[in-house]
Amino acid sequence: MTAARPDIAGCKAALAGLDIDDTPATVKQKSRDFFWYSPVLKARMDHLTADFVVAPRDADELRRALAAAYAHDVPVTTRGAGTGNYGQAMPLAGGMVLHMKHFDRVLEIAPGRVRAEAGAIIAGIDRQTRAQSGQELRMHPSTAQTATIGGFVAGGSGGVGSIRWGGLRDAGNLLSLTLVTCEAEPRTLRLTGDDIHKASHAYGVNGVITEVEAPLAPAYEWRDVLLGFDTWREANAFAYALGHQDGMLLKQLCTVAAPIGQNFFKRHARFIGPHDHLVVAMAAPNAMGALDAFAARWPSARVLFRSDRDATEGLPPAYELGWNHTTLRALRVDPSITYLQVLYGEPTVEKIVEMAEVYGDEVPGHVEFVRFDGRVRGMGLPLVRFTDEARLDAIVAGHEARGCPVFNPHRYTLEEGGMKQSDPAQLGFKRETDPKGLLNPGKMIAWDDPDHDFAAQGFYLFPGMAAQ
Amino acid sequence: MTAARPDIAGCKAALAGLDIDDTPATVKQKSRDFFWYSPVLKARMDHLTADFVVAPRDADELRRALAAAYAHDVPVTTRGAGTGNYGQAMPLAGGMVLHMKHFDRVLEIAPGRVRAEAGAIIAGIDRQTRAQSGQELRMHPSTAQTATIGGFVAGGSGGVGSIRWGGLRDAGNLLSLTLVTCEAEPRTLRLTGDDIHKASHAYGVNGVITEVEAPLAPAYEWRDVLLGFDTWREANAFAYALGHQDGMLLKQLCTVAAPIGQNFFKRHARFIGPHDHLVVAMAAPNAMGALDAFAARWPSARVLFRSDRDATEGLPPAYELGWNHTTLRALRVDPSITYLQVLYGEPTVEKIVEMAEVYGDEVPGHVEFVRFDGRVRGMGLPLVRFTDEARLDAIVAGHEARGCPVFNPHRYTLEEGGMKQSDPAQLGFKRETDPKGLLNPGKMIAWDDPDHDFAAQGFYLFPGMAAQ
Repeated sequence: MTAARPDIAGCKAALAGLDIDDTPATVKQKSRDFFWYSPVLKARMDHLTADFVVAPRDADELRRALAAAYAHDVPVTTRGAGTGNYGQAMPLAGGMVLHMKHFDRVLEIAPGRVRAEAGAIIAGIDRQTRAQSGQELRMHPSTAQTATIGGFVAGGSGGVGSIRWGGLRDAGNLLSLTLVTCEAEPRTLRLTGDDIHKASHAYGVNGVITEVEAPLAPAYEWRDVLLGFDTWREANAFAYALGHQDGMLLKQLCTVAAPIGQNFFKRHARFIGPHDHLVVAMAAPNAMGALDAFAARWPSARVLFRSDRDATEGLPPAYELGWNHTTLRALRVDPSITYLQVLYGEPTVEKIVEMAEVYGDEVPGHVEFVRFDGRVRGMGLPLVRFTDEARLDAIVAGHEARGCPVFNPHRYTLEEGGMKQSDPAQLGFKRETDPKGLLNPGKMIAWDDPDHDFAAQGFYLFPGMAAQ
Repeated sequence: MTAARPDIAGCKAALAGLDIDDTPATVKQKSRDFFWYSPVLKARMDHLTADFVVAPRDADELRRALAAAYAHDVPVTTRGAGTGNYGQAMPLAGGMVLHMKHFDRVLEIAPGRVRAEAGAIIAGIDRQTRAQSGQELRMHPSTAQTATIGGFVAGGSGGVGSIRWGGLRDAGNLLSLTLVTCEAEPRTLRLTGDDIHKASHAYGVNGVITEVEAPLAPAYEWRDVLLGFDTWREANAFAYALGHQDGMLLKQLCTVAAPIGQNFFKRHARFIGPHDHLVVAMAAPNAMGALDAFAARWPSARVLFRSDRDATEGLPPAYELGWNHTTLRALRVDPSITYLQVLYGEPTVEKIVEMAEVYGDEVPGHVEFVRFDGRVRGMGLPLVRFTDEARLDAIVAGHEARGCPVFNPHRYTLEEGGMKQSDPAQLGFKRETDPKGLLNPGKMIAWDDPDHDFAAQGFYLFPGMAAQ
């Protein structure tokens, strides 16, 4: 579907009175997310910028913005805080960046659920639910302090909390989504049940999410715990076994190979030795006695840090040592480092150890343990010492050949970063909600190129992407 | 270890002023638990009675009672509500029944934990924790309305809640136990961490539990749901898959083969057809949308009853259709029915179906789905149409030969009803806490007969058991 030429000036004129910014520096800044974790995406996307930013103040203004985009054939890239890592909020074809910062209210807090506007900061939601009801969101990304709930739902898969609750795609982890279509007269739709997944993890290609209703879990004074082990194998065997302990309530569980902790966890480094392979966990207070007893059974396990024992002033929360904060901390020290996303095959611990043996210091280990299809799985975010794209592709292929599928974070399309196949439900829903294909163009291969061969190698390059 | 002859009169004299009852009818009544679910135990234990009942009013009186028992060599059988099914509270050698009814206080409620006296009724604890803090115990037996927390810990293995939290033996599901020893000067001990399991599920053979500290979970207005399926296979496949849904918060999940529901669930029968193989679930309100969507994917699934849709007046809670309440409801209609406890091998659903095919209407199916060692497993409590002990033993052997171990509920010893091996930690702890072997004699084979051959067939008969 070839898009008509956008009428940027006409669109802006139609939006008079809205919160619009077209200062080039600002537009450039609001046209970026955390795509630069990937040198591959950085090489291809660094130059991208939209034409203007609009931040609707309410639903009426949002509908006006989408109707104007539709009328004037202007591409729309919706963004929250821009903390995503796959270029999901990068405007490949320019046009309008739709900034959701004014949609920041928590609308309803009830036993077991919260409804919030899409632009609400996740940590802010948790502060309100905690204060009013002793509850908090089941899961959040490591960027909770800045990320929005809408961005998390549109681009995330899970995170802190997934060791207990599984991922966002698991039934029950989202209760409803409200979104607005991009049509002549934008409609407001509310999705529940399985329909939620028509628009979750869709990068905003098939509607602008305005409200998220999510389940709540009890809020605890989570204890941050760092344990050290002599070997990578023992650290992962410990974490895998700990993840199976249904009676010990955990919120976070990951392993980080030596010497990542000492080299890159600057503020925790004083607790960590150069040979410590780490387990980083967050546990409910009522799990700490059991955790002590459990750890005592492992030959080399040693508690390096406990937030209920050691001074915590100036330290980030443990979840900011995990997920892509691990990558971020490494990147800050060594900008040549990037990462992968690996679902280790079974037996999990053996596969984790095997990959470490195959790739050694080129791919330092970092594994998030999560519940996945009802089972404990190791979801790796190993660091990668990047040399060139060919080598990176070879590492990806090497993992997949050894039974460890890679969700490639060096691609900006839904399909290539995911299951390498089109999602008919998401595609069909896009036909209903975005008939002109204006929402985040280039992110859904199935829309642009229905006959794309996902089995073929190579990077999908959106033909409509602005030239460098 | 041969016990000295008990001096009942001397012991009673030493306990002057305590709440003692030696009226034969009362003593007989307080010397019984729910052992009669088993025709095998009924044949061997129906005649048993203690010599007197003492119900200490506080810890001082409890220590007096235990010191007197020690001084006068009187066996002590501790009891709560007597809702156990394995004769755990049956006084094999007479003596004192120690009734914990005055230890009924909830002592402390905090975020994530409760501390209560051992004789507190479980449902009463939940009422207090719910009212004060919106929390409830993670798990309870189906007898929660009458059973005590101490009895549950001393004899139970899990129950309602185990689909989420695993069993009582899982680290973190008990926080501490306080108990009193049977010595010349009884000591009070507090067990934490792994030490808890020295005295949990020990039938009171190695100390009298006086306090239980347990973790709390958020209390929800659980929805009771009955679903019907055309085949036993589909009902179990559904339940097994549902049990893996980490995002759907369940408190109970079991399957019951047709026509058990219509024949034996008298007050729910109007919702149930004669050919409905049932799934009985309790779900948090925030799981109901996902549950509807999930059920819609199964060919024959139909919602027969929902407590948030149908009239519930006069209906028992769904958990009183599960666990041994299933057996109880069948027994009330057909007294020839008893039951087994089966851990189905893998693949779970295939094993469940295989056993149904092998035994047909002689062993109608009932499977509780639980988390066991971090995995969803089917724990069967199938009904058995009892003919004689030889046939029952053959059914047990037939299950075990097909990879489905049986925790035999027709035995009164810890070992035979459990893992068929001695527990060195529990045995060692008994040496410390009960040097004369007076606490619940005959229930721990390892104490009475250290050389017992657990591999041999046959019923262990405690030599000290009172003759019929």
